[in-house]
Amino acid sequence: MGDTTVGDNSERGLVEQVSRVVEQAKELQDLSASLISRTSLEEDSLRQRLHSLNSTIQSLRSSIRNSNLLDSKNSEKLEEELFRARYILTEGGAAAFLPSKSHGRFLSMFLGPINVRATRKDVQLKVKEEYNSFRDRTAYLFLLFPLLLIVLRSWIWNGCLPALPVQLYQAWLLYLYTGLALRENILRVNGSDIRPWWIYHHYFAMAMALISLTWEIERGPECAQKQKGVLLFLKWAIMQGISMLLQNRYQRQRLYTRIALGKAGRMDVVWGETAGVEGQLWLLCPILFILQGFEAYVGVLLLKIALVGVISEWQVVTCGILLIIMAVGNFANTVQTLVTKSRVKAKMKKGKNKQELDQGFGKHQ
Amino acid sequence: MGDTTVGDNSERGLVEQVSRVVEQAKELQDLSASLISRTSLEEDSLRQRLHSLNSTIQSLRSSIRNSNLLDSKNSEKLEEELFRARYILTEGGAAAFLPSKSHGRFLSMFLGPINVRATRKDVQLKVKEEYNSFRDRTAYLFLLFPLLLIVLRSWIWNGCLPALPVQLYQAWLLYLYTGLALRENILRVNGSDIRPWWIYHHYFAMAMALISLTWEIERGPECAQKQKGVLLFLKWAIMQGISMLLQNRYQRQRLYTRIALGKAGRMDVVWGETAGVEGQLWLLCPILFILQGFEAYVGVLLLKIALVGVISEWQVVTCGILLIIMAVGNFANTVQTLVTKSRVKAKMKKGKNKQELDQGFGKHQ
Repeated sequence: MGDTTVGDNSERGLVEQVSRVVEQAKELQDLSASLISRTSLEEDSLRQRLHSLNSTIQSLRSSIRNSNLLDSKNSEKLEEELFRARYILTEGGAAAFLPSKSHGRFLSMFLGPINVRATRKDVQLKVKEEYNSFRDRTAYLFLLFPLLLIVLRSWIWNGCLPALPVQLYQAWLLYLYTGLALRENILRVNGSDIRPWWIYHHYFAMAMALISLTWEIERGPECAQKQKGVLLFLKWAIMQGISMLLQNRYQRQRLYTRIALGKAGRMDVVWGETAGVEGQLWLLCPILFILQGFEAYVGVLLLKIALVGVISEWQVVTCGILLIIMAVGNFANTVQTLVTKSRVKAKMKKGKNKQELDQGFGKHQ
Repeated sequence: MGDTTVGDNSERGLVEQVSRVVEQAKELQDLSASLISRTSLEEDSLRQRLHSLNSTIQSLRSSIRNSNLLDSKNSEKLEEELFRARYILTEGGAAAFLPSKSHGRFLSMFLGPINVRATRKDVQLKVKEEYNSFRDRTAYLFLLFPLLLIVLRSWIWNGCLPALPVQLYQAWLLYLYTGLALRENILRVNGSDIRPWWIYHHYFAMAMALISLTWEIERGPECAQKQKGVLLFLKWAIMQGISMLLQNRYQRQRLYTRIALGKAGRMDVVWGETAGVEGQLWLLCPILFILQGFEAYVGVLLLKIALVGVISEWQVVTCGILLIIMAVGNFANTVQTLVTKSRVKAKMKKGKNKQELDQGFGKHQ
């Protein structure tokens, strides 16, 4: 049979080749079906074992905490070992089979029930890398678009912004925040420990972009007065762009440092958290706080404009409130991160435990 | 060792349990890693074999077509067998390992490089089912929202639509079309043969919803005159809702009929195609054509309004053009589907081949 090659175009040759192809197709179908069912069986059993080990860790942890027999040094050591075991499970290959965090309403609203969790670590890391480069790309645009609008306003448009370019910018913002919110939800499903606030922040920003689209861009003689709100928003966006660029750069460095120290998984996202090495922290912190202050200030100004009655549209009031909520939330989360940071540092200074821990992790990286 | 249970809270017991947990964690990590690498090796080899079988089928098909030795009856029979082999590959479990259709720009724009392809057939079918029920749910809302707006307009709002409810409706449309476009792209990746036009159609509809958000809803004395465009659009939306409901119902029946006949895979989508059993076809076809005519008519009216100068915003012109493009595209695609349908029917009447084919497929369903 082996000598009837594809090149044999006699009638008998063709008939034989075709029937062989049909046989092979059936064979491949059976192979595929058995591979899929075998894999899902193995995955299920692994998942079950992981699940029971996880609950064992939980109950051991509470036993250790409630135990009177252990002195504090010993119990701390045991807790650290449990932490290590948990870390191996959540960061190693096994993480793919842990019961995944629920997809959440946002993802299922847009995508339906499709699975966005990657089982292979290298794929997860690719997703993470792409998210970082998406943030880099958009940070430049975030800086460029409003800058261009402001420059053109005084250079060509005689102090009066036309509606179309502003609306194009707002539509881009809507796309950007939707993309970020979708990507961050996907990262979360893939094991990133992104703080929930940064995702909520993007939901608020989506709402604001959508609302600003319905916001009438006033033209005519009084437009300089009436466009005050838009102009303030653009200036805030420029500052936001600068801070995004700084944050992206420093956070990437910090993430790599933290990974090297074994303190972070490679899927972690440190959006808006104060970043990195000591020197950079003292540069970024003031910038972040100034930005948050300015964000709240723009919000208050919008409310004032609406109350005084220069522009009485509901959009102005809502955008003002949203900006203030975002500023307060950002501030609270930055402070919280700083507090956690200093607590961790204080704890580290207390003992050499940290070094032991790092070495322990080093083995499993 | 088996006698130190979780309940044993003595110091020695706890230490032993913790070290056992760490051991188990490492073991599970190794198991997971080996499962993942083994599975991807097997998948790769299967993928390679599928790929080579696919190209063998291709080359055999062209050999059969170019061969002078075969009479037409024999060559048709061989071609059918090859078609069957190809069908087994694309519809059976093996389909999961075929080189997947590229994700396309739209999905990677919103989601990044995450894999949205399900390997297990039951998951794929769940995605398909959810897509159907999403369409059902939205069809009711599609009918309800514009109806409510029109009723309230004459009942409470004295013939003059306020901006906010209309804009909420437009924002919902934007979400709806984005969700449909994302889901249909995901279905395509999962092996559905949805016609590309219906996805493009949703891109156009997304653009129109976005543009309509920036469209100033006129108030004041002349609003009845100036809101003509919006009102027309709402009326068209009601008709669209009715036709969506009818289509969903009939298409689902038709899909199940086609699956039973072996003519369609369960992942197929028949968006906007004329549906089903003969009787239903003669009900749906006129409705679809009337709807498409009305869509184009609304588009032309919008253009006329803009040209006469009642409303001179660019949004009106663009929405008009988009509606006309969508109407023409829908019409062309419906006609094309009807033509394909009648051709298939003509071919079937020609011989008994069809029955053989159906029986052949029946074995592999």
